[in-house]
Amino acid sequence: MYTCDVKRMEDKIKTFSTFGDAGHGGITRYSLSPEAIMARNEFIKRMTAIHAEIVTDDMANMYATLPGSDPSAKRIVMASHCDSVKNGGNYDGILGVMGAMEVLETIAAEDIPHTHPVTAMIWTNEEGSLYPPAMMSSGVVCNDFLPTEIAKKFKQEDMLASKSVLDRTRTFGEALESSGFKGDKKNRLNPDDYKCMFELHIEQGPILEDAGNDVGVVTCVLGMFNYRIRFYGQSDHAGTTPMHKRQDALHAAAQALCYLHEEIDKLDRPELVYTTGEILCHPCVHTVIPDFVDFSIDVRHEDPAVRQKVLAIVKGLADREWAKCRCEVELAWARDTVYFDKELVSYVKEAAEQAGVKHQYINSGAGHDAQFVSYMLPTTMIFVVSKDGHSHCEPEYSSPEQCTNGATVMLNAVLKADAS
Amino acid sequence: MYTCDVKRMEDKIKTFSTFGDAGHGGITRYSLSPEAIMARNEFIKRMTAIHAEIVTDDMANMYATLPGSDPSAKRIVMASHCDSVKNGGNYDGILGVMGAMEVLETIAAEDIPHTHPVTAMIWTNEEGSLYPPAMMSSGVVCNDFLPTEIAKKFKQEDMLASKSVLDRTRTFGEALESSGFKGDKKNRLNPDDYKCMFELHIEQGPILEDAGNDVGVVTCVLGMFNYRIRFYGQSDHAGTTPMHKRQDALHAAAQALCYLHEEIDKLDRPELVYTTGEILCHPCVHTVIPDFVDFSIDVRHEDPAVRQKVLAIVKGLADREWAKCRCEVELAWARDTVYFDKELVSYVKEAAEQAGVKHQYINSGAGHDAQFVSYMLPTTMIFVVSKDGHSHCEPEYSSPEQCTNGATVMLNAVLKADAS
Repeated sequence: MYTCDVKRMEDKIKTFSTFGDAGHGGITRYSLSPEAIMARNEFIKRMTAIHAEIVTDDMANMYATLPGSDPSAKRIVMASHCDSVKNGGNYDGILGVMGAMEVLETIAAEDIPHTHPVTAMIWTNEEGSLYPPAMMSSGVVCNDFLPTEIAKKFKQEDMLASKSVLDRTRTFGEALESSGFKGDKKNRLNPDDYKCMFELHIEQGPILEDAGNDVGVVTCVLGMFNYRIRFYGQSDHAGTTPMHKRQDALHAAAQALCYLHEEIDKLDRPELVYTTGEILCHPCVHTVIPDFVDFSIDVRHEDPAVRQKVLAIVKGLADREWAKCRCEVELAWARDTVYFDKELVSYVKEAAEQAGVKHQYINSGAGHDAQFVSYMLPTTMIFVVSKDGHSHCEPEYSSPEQCTNGATVMLNAVLKADAS
Repeated sequence: MYTCDVKRMEDKIKTFSTFGDAGHGGITRYSLSPEAIMARNEFIKRMTAIHAEIVTDDMANMYATLPGSDPSAKRIVMASHCDSVKNGGNYDGILGVMGAMEVLETIAAEDIPHTHPVTAMIWTNEEGSLYPPAMMSSGVVCNDFLPTEIAKKFKQEDMLASKSVLDRTRTFGEALESSGFKGDKKNRLNPDDYKCMFELHIEQGPILEDAGNDVGVVTCVLGMFNYRIRFYGQSDHAGTTPMHKRQDALHAAAQALCYLHEEIDKLDRPELVYTTGEILCHPCVHTVIPDFVDFSIDVRHEDPAVRQKVLAIVKGLADREWAKCRCEVELAWARDTVYFDKELVSYVKEAAEQAGVKHQYINSGAGHDAQFVSYMLPTTMIFVVSKDGHSHCEPEYSSPEQCTNGATVMLNAVLKADAS
């Protein structure tokens, strides 16, 4: 049983928190920005110090590798990302990179014997905050292994053409070329050279904290679907149109949204989550009755039978009029539940037990690069408790001890994979 | 009994519809734009042809006057506006200008005897589409007579500083200076030189059409209030936050909006109108639970006691939580019902009866320059039926006969005022 070092971990947390520091407890660190490049240079500095070999691939993904005793053995990789959302926190993504470095530093410092080479990796542009979509590089690198419907949304030429949301004249491809981190396609993560992948990440929810656990043994990424619900009414003057003559698309949308909550809640599945996060209203003028409203609905559950029940409720909206408005329901996208590799999951569970870290099984409601990689390689994830369940915001927090516990679990799970 | 000329009216409708023609049945004619200046030049051409005297004031309001038999008598003015909203129709505003010209042309052509000078007037920037607010020039010209709360929103220096919604570097004051139509402040509509004002306008609602009438005898502009309703929740990840932990500001807003409809409808006042036209949602991302939603509510009814009952329901929203979100209610603005001059209203009613034009009493749910003028001068309005009740859109339509009937009623009402 080996353990990682809380002082060394704390130093990494403090150092990486300065790259993109927004001045009030969090960071903005878009992929390939000057702030992200400072983080990449810090990764190089620390990995060079332990004599890891560093390469990049054609999407600027970075790989730092310590050799094992068998030069021909496949590599075991630990990966996450160092980019953030706007005004994000100091843990989402970067924790998995710091944890991977901490594992290599512990292996080097304690001269831990291992057969396979072990790699710490940075995925480029996981958040997709500046250059959409999210999980861009794993979508490209794993493209040949992904389900067709997903693969076609991550074609490399389309990704390179993705425009900055802040400067529509600049593409991701241009940012990549000028970053200094674009390497060779042959260095990409691939199933011939890599045995398996681990990703350490904050939970981004309240379940571990509520249960008093430090670590989650992740079993799957929830299946989900995303629909657009649209209402078509008639624009008229707010002061001159009698109520009985109106076709108010916003009243229709409000009724349908309340109906969705009532009907979905009747299914009584506490582990089901569904969200309307986006609403658009036209013309959105206070003296005009809206003629068009469009809202999103995002639904996530492990079991496809449960998702089907919700889908029937959602699709049923279009069978009736809402406030005399026509309703249209359109699929934006859907994905099945992605189950992680059972053996790797068992190594994580055993490692947590042996290290005496309080843990539980958990699933991931959020998307991660690991879910794309799992179509290509045996893959799993380890969650670290998130204070108050917050993420994608400045109050993100996991204590140095909790972060180190996560790294310790990953280190010992890697060693089990190495021995298998 | 005199009647206006349908051929002459039809010619005006066709001609003015070319100024700002958007190519599919309607116009975009922002105030003081090149298109609006074409309309003003056509007004000058037609009014010069009947030897009317034309002046402008310091807000570029235009006045074309035919003398009466008593040079010292106060003027009777007929006024509306020639500017439109974006992609508006061929009747809102310009009908009142064409009707005023038609009255003067009929007086000139038939040499109708009258004591008072009679004036056709164009109000500048009634819509406020390019340079907000709406009713800008009547707000300035009548400022000393308006209730304090309204007057302070229409101070001339603030109006001149109003920025173009399309070009934030350009102000209304600059557009006014360069228009060629800025005249002398002493030419403004005022109670020493003017006896009363009539405004002919399309109804902008379906009431006259449903009743089979051509003309509405307007008695008042409805009192109204406008509130903002705000909900404060907590932003969290759509995939990782259990339903029972959420504070979803959009679910809160949808519930409150449905509650408002249910409670207000219980008052069972069919002549009451209320509208939520605007909704803002933050951060408005489909994978994030909204932490803030803000919507408008616009409520209109003649009777202050009815408005008070609705206000109690609206204010009551803040007394409870909605979907665990705090609710805040804030007044944006309110105005009392403005009653038009009883004598002028009776002239319009008698004129419609004598002309055999099908008519009824009606109130105005929309705001008009006439409502501001009514604080300064005896004022009233005449409505012409709107096909399908549409306005502020390209399908606006009233037939040449209906428009001419409106002008005939105005002509005879003006002659009654002249004789009074």
